[in-house]
Amino acid sequence: MTDASDSVFSKIIRGEIPCHRVYEDDHVIAFLDVNPIARGHTLVIPKEPAPTMCELSDDAAAALGRVLPRICRAVMKATGASAYNLLQNNGAEAMQSVFHVHVHVIPRFPGDGSPGLECEWRPKPLGEDGADLGRQIARLL
Amino acid sequence: MTDASDSVFSKIIRGEIPCHRVYEDDHVIAFLDVNPIARGHTLVIPKEPAPTMCELSDDAAAALGRVLPRICRAVMKATGASAYNLLQNNGAEAMQSVFHVHVHVIPRFPGDGSPGLECEWRPKPLGEDGADLGRQIARLL
Repeated sequence: MTDASDSVFSKIIRGEIPCHRVYEDDHVIAFLDVNPIARGHTLVIPKEPAPTMCELSDDAAAALGRVLPRICRAVMKATGASAYNLLQNNGAEAMQSVFHVHVHVIPRFPGDGSPGLECEWRPKPLGEDGADLGRQIARLL
Repeated sequence: MTDASDSVFSKIIRGEIPCHRVYEDDHVIAFLDVNPIARGHTLVIPKEPAPTMCELSDDAAAALGRVLPRICRAVMKATGASAYNLLQNNGAEAMQSVFHVHVHVIPRFPGDGSPGLECEWRPKPLGEDGADLGRQIARLL
């Protein structure tokens, strides 16, 4: 297992890599996914560098859970999405690519051609509206 | 939006409908999905009857988050899965069918023919080993 403290997300937490941050407190940071599968696709991560949920402390998991309603409301309001999935992958066989716990907040839009999570997981580079959208969501938090 | 307090999950919480319970505390209950998409497919739900994450209280969301590492470790240990997804759906367009917040814990097994969440979401009735597996997981919690 990769050392989670060396992952790109720990670098984001330490400010070594920039991000479109939408939320931060002592225990959690949230930012737009740079390869979104939907407009407003946001990552919510604990600052504790656990590779998977099984290895996350109870306190860090509680802090992560606590902010989800607030972040989801903001993402929904900012994007106008009608529905959303929260997805958290653990292990390579479960689509995890960065080995630092992260919750995907994935807004859904009617008629977007990806009903449910049989959706074709098609990442796209964050578009030019990324910075604005990031700020828009941050203002709602 | 359906009244979450009338959902099948509230009936499970109140003991009006049986379940293969694997965990319970004052705020959370977890049990095997009766239509699992993988062996050990478990649902973790807050007792607070919020239809979606946006409507869940911060405290209930924290309590839900706090138990996830513990429940995931038990499900992984009981099933021998090598990876797992946590999935939480909000809204009909996001595959939500029961309008009471619930987190799916979905174990993954190498070569199970459903790589990632492009998996064909194919529910199967809980097999005869359901009760035993439920108890097995419960004992690990």
